[in-house]
Amino acid sequence: MTTSQEPLDPRAEALRASFRRHASGVAVITALDADGLPVGFTATSVTSLGTNPPLVSFNVARGSSTWPTISNTKYVALHTLGVENRELAIKMSQDHTKRFVETDWSAGAFGLPVLAGVSSVLILEIREVVNVELNAVVVADVIDGFIGVEQRPLLYFQRGYVTAAEID
Amino acid sequence: MTTSQEPLDPRAEALRASFRRHASGVAVITALDADGLPVGFTATSVTSLGTNPPLVSFNVARGSSTWPTISNTKYVALHTLGVENRELAIKMSQDHTKRFVETDWSAGAFGLPVLAGVSSVLILEIREVVNVELNAVVVADVIDGFIGVEQRPLLYFQRGYVTAAEID
Repeated sequence: MTTSQEPLDPRAEALRASFRRHASGVAVITALDADGLPVGFTATSVTSLGTNPPLVSFNVARGSSTWPTISNTKYVALHTLGVENRELAIKMSQDHTKRFVETDWSAGAFGLPVLAGVSSVLILEIREVVNVELNAVVVADVIDGFIGVEQRPLLYFQRGYVTAAEID
Repeated sequence: MTTSQEPLDPRAEALRASFRRHASGVAVITALDADGLPVGFTATSVTSLGTNPPLVSFNVARGSSTWPTISNTKYVALHTLGVENRELAIKMSQDHTKRFVETDWSAGAFGLPVLAGVSSVLILEIREVVNVELNAVVVADVIDGFIGVEQRPLLYFQRGYVTAAEID
């Protein structure tokens, strides 16, 4: 090996090792960029922040292709995914120039890109963006929502996609 | 019916309906209260905020029994749970006066209550607490961690505990 490598940060390794044992639900966040074009990304950090008022949070990398839009827009659409949406989850986490090529979507509230075939959709109004180092926590109000296709949930676990099952 | 009821908030109902289709990993957060006694709660909102530096976030209800401690302490222990820890997850979400009765734990870094038999433990230093209505987002640095019992992950889905499985 002629390349030099950064020494491993033991605290980062501890986080990675721990989170390989922690599963997450999978969602896709979409928005319209400054040119009115659809953008989106796969998120495994979506959580509820209570129902009174109804609020959610999600994390976004500030170096990501979607960050310029997320940090400047008011509305986003949050889609919860099921097992039938695995290819969508993969597509929305890869080459950002191809995420809406041959993707089935339509314009919803505020013109937001609403993806077809997902398990549910929430229309969100961004309330607060908290920058934390290279990432940000986005806090948003739920302003509308609807249920989609009934299907088993999609989860991310050990660097791959799985679903939920009863405990034996 | 002689009782009056609050009208349902359709936005809150949309959030509930959507999140019933979204699964979450299950963790327990513990800390020492002002009297040096162990406190803890079950959390389904734990996410990574990047590894450079290694950061996590989790949500806590500001009306919860653990909030006075979380909002005033510097260090907490985060435990990822597996299927063998289902009873622990239930216990840490019920009567707060009984959460450490007959619970197997020992004092770890900073005297933090470290629970036995979990899949991994991270020692966290709280960096920022962002109040959002009745809840708060806690951002914390990972300062140490270790791996525990190898087991299938514990998930929360449709108001019950499940595990992960391959997609058919």
